Amino acid sequence: MATLGLIEYENASAEVRAVYGDIMATRKTDWINNFWKALAHDPATLRRTWLSIKEIMAPGALDALTKEMLYLAVSATNQCGYCIASHTAAARKAGMTDAMLAELMAVVGMANETNRLASGYQVEIDAQFRTS
Amino acid sequence: MATLGLIEYENASAEVRAVYGDIMATRKTDWINNFWKALAHDPATLRRTWLSIKEIMAPGALDALTKEMLYLAVSATNQCGYCIASHTAAARKAGMTDAMLAELMAVVGMANETNRLASGYQVEIDAQFRTS
Amino acid sequence: MATLGLIEYENASAEVRAVYGDIMATRKTDWINNFWKALAHDPATLRRTWLSIKEIMAPGALDALTKEMLYLAVSATNQCGYCIASHTAAARKAGMTDAMLAELMAVVGMANETNRLASGYQVEIDAQFRTS
Amino acid sequence: MATLGLIEYENASAEVRAVYGDIMATRKTDWINNFWKALAHDPATLRRTWLSIKEIMAPGALDALTKEMLYLAVSATNQCGYCIASHTAAARKAGMTDAMLAELMAVVGMANETNRLASGYQVEIDAQFRTS
Amino acid sequence: MATLGLIEYENASAEVRAVYGDIMATRKTDWINNFWKALAHDPATLRRTWLSIKEIMAPGALDALTKEMLYLAVSATNQCGYCIASHTAAARKAGMTDAMLAELMAVVGMANETNRLASGYQVEIDAQFRTS
Amino acid sequence: MATLGLIEYENASAEVRAVYGDIMATRKTDWINNFWKALAHDPATLRRTWLSIKEIMAPGALDALTKEMLYLAVSATNQCGYCIASHTAAARKAGMTDAMLAELMAVVGMANETNRLASGYQVEIDAQFRTS
Repeated sequence: MATLGLIEYENASAEVRAVYGDIMATRKTDWINNFWKALAHDPATLRRTWLSIKEIMAPGALDALTKEMLYLAVSATNQCGYCIASHTAAARKAGMTDAMLAELMAVVGMANETNRLASGYQVEIDAQFRTS
Repeated sequence: MATLGLIEYENASAEVRAVYGDIMATRKTDWINNFWKALAHDPATLRRTWLSIKEIMAPGALDALTKEMLYLAVSATNQCGYCIASHTAAARKAGMTDAMLAELMAVVGMANETNRLASGYQVEIDAQFRTS
Repeated sequence: MATLGLIEYENASAEVRAVYGDIMATRKTDWINNFWKALAHDPATLRRTWLSIKEIMAPGALDALTKEMLYLAVSATNQCGYCIASHTAAARKAGMTDAMLAELMAVVGMANETNRLASGYQVEIDAQFRTS
Repeated sequence: MATLGLIEYENASAEVRAVYGDIMATRKTDWINNFWKALAHDPATLRRTWLSIKEIMAPGALDALTKEMLYLAVSATNQCGYCIASHTAAARKAGMTDAMLAELMAVVGMANETNRLASGYQVEIDAQFRTS
Repeated sequence: MATLGLIEYENASAEVRAVYGDIMATRKTDWINNFWKALAHDPATLRRTWLSIKEIMAPGALDALTKEMLYLAVSATNQCGYCIASHTAAARKAGMTDAMLAELMAVVGMANETNRLASGYQVEIDAQFRTS
Repeated sequence: MATLGLIEYENASAEVRAVYGDIMATRKTDWINNFWKALAHDPATLRRTWLSIKEIMAPGALDALTKEMLYLAVSATNQCGYCIASHTAAARKAGMTDAMLAELMAVVGMANETNRLASGYQVEIDAQFRTS
């Protein structure tokens, strides 16, 4: 179980309930996933993390689906089991098809391979890639 | 310098030149970046890596820009200096604006944060996120 | 199960029992956790790893609690499930409260975020931070 | 140079100057390090990141020095060059001596070693370490 | 379960069956492990990944056992649970004894430790190690 | 420069000189690389790290060359610049040819790729790979 346990809505303080309410309203869902229930033991981190994600994941120069796929790519690279499961679900909800998932994973795998080849061979950055 | 040095076109074998030629034709560019010149000491890896990237990065269910941004997100997560520099350039060439870059980095940073919060708090995967 | 299985005290060689005994005496506990039982198949690694940890984790310029929290911060960053579980327990035994755990995780999350922002934006080290 | 360049105070917008001002006031310093100048191209990320760090790094259940050392331990584990340099300086400013730095690094090294031994040997979590 | 499920031989397309057949023939085994069954939803990635592994893992300048041990060392460093389990089995099949496994893990642990000490202490590369 | 600077032989304490002497004798070389000179500010860590490496890297069930290649594979996976440079040199001294280096890097790249595919697709460990 999560280190400090999970705080359900009915047992939550008003401060935590307000965050839970905003999560459900923003995501148009009627439940809260375990990540937030585990963070709820630290209301300051719960609030700050949620407000940051809400701001960062809102459509802007990048659409919501692209952002969710970037999140999943990072989670797969870090091999975070919880995050891969939850962000696969989130990306699908945002429109990711199985074909898109498969291409995403192919890119993630390839990038992890060439990252090590570039570092392992001690390749110097080309002058053309340097920013000014 | 790269461990085994860099092989320039003029010093390359016919096998390596063929790969270099395909890279330049596919990318519509007239130069080869150091990564490939470093791999050229191992023509089998050069060829295989190039053909894999060519296949993976071609537009499919995901467009070329999205794929380049996923590549950059992985490289930033792994903190591969060469790869961040080269794939920032590649993503820009594919259409990434500075505003898109900034949003991409915000997502990458956030995902790296919550990956550790989820793991650090030992959060269990919700039944809803389990795939069957 | 652990790759090579776990070696219980009653089945252990005299060499392994000596290490087990020192672990229990040093930690003022009457049991051995699985990590050591898994390493016991390689008595040289068991002994060397234990003596290193014993030396490193002893109070010095840093107190035992601070050291346990640093260990937990590294384990959360690496997302090592076993290590997070065992070092959460060890840090608590050394005095870490739930409030301290929550602040520790907030720092770990933030550091993982800004590590990628610094690398992803290719930020150069300030002259002021260079050690001559 | 940083991907998008660095924004100096004299060229910064009022929004960015306000953040720079708060950083200098909070840290009791008269200069801004490159990390913030690189983020300043994205004022929303600059503000959010600074406010998060300000909140997280303030003394609470953990004192400021312990928090800075945790930050450095994460940065060393991730091998982020910029972050190691800047947080070594920050931790020293908060009171970290050379002896404390050396002990911190010894713990970081050891934790990175045993994280892989625990994972590599596929050690199962002890019942005693499970949280309920 | 795997995100997209597992495709068994009897439900596989001719294209996937051809890869499965080559895997079994090459490895002199009569079953397919889950990794390939999960990838089979993306036949292009299945084929490309298998052909790459087949080419890379074939004996050459390095023998098959050494290659399997290198694969296991990387997997232990990345703490990939599936990969550690499958490549421990593969390396054993190629001849790795328990004593070799123990020495391999000792090297992996030590390298992960000194990697962080070298980065954490900001050690500069010796002129003697530079490949001009 | 290294955080605490480098301690040259002529400025070293008797305790540090003894370790330096053993390093040079064991490695049949007449110089000390920067890693040890940086650690020398913490004689306990210098001594412990050297004695551990000396014990771990000595030929046993695995020969010295295989051990050096495993060290390099881990360092390339972690992308530790100093460690890649120093262990490439060490592996070459132990007999690694350019062809062996190239095959090693190909395995490292591939393992990093499939580690993420296995994790990203949430592949379950096959019953056949479970030890028990």
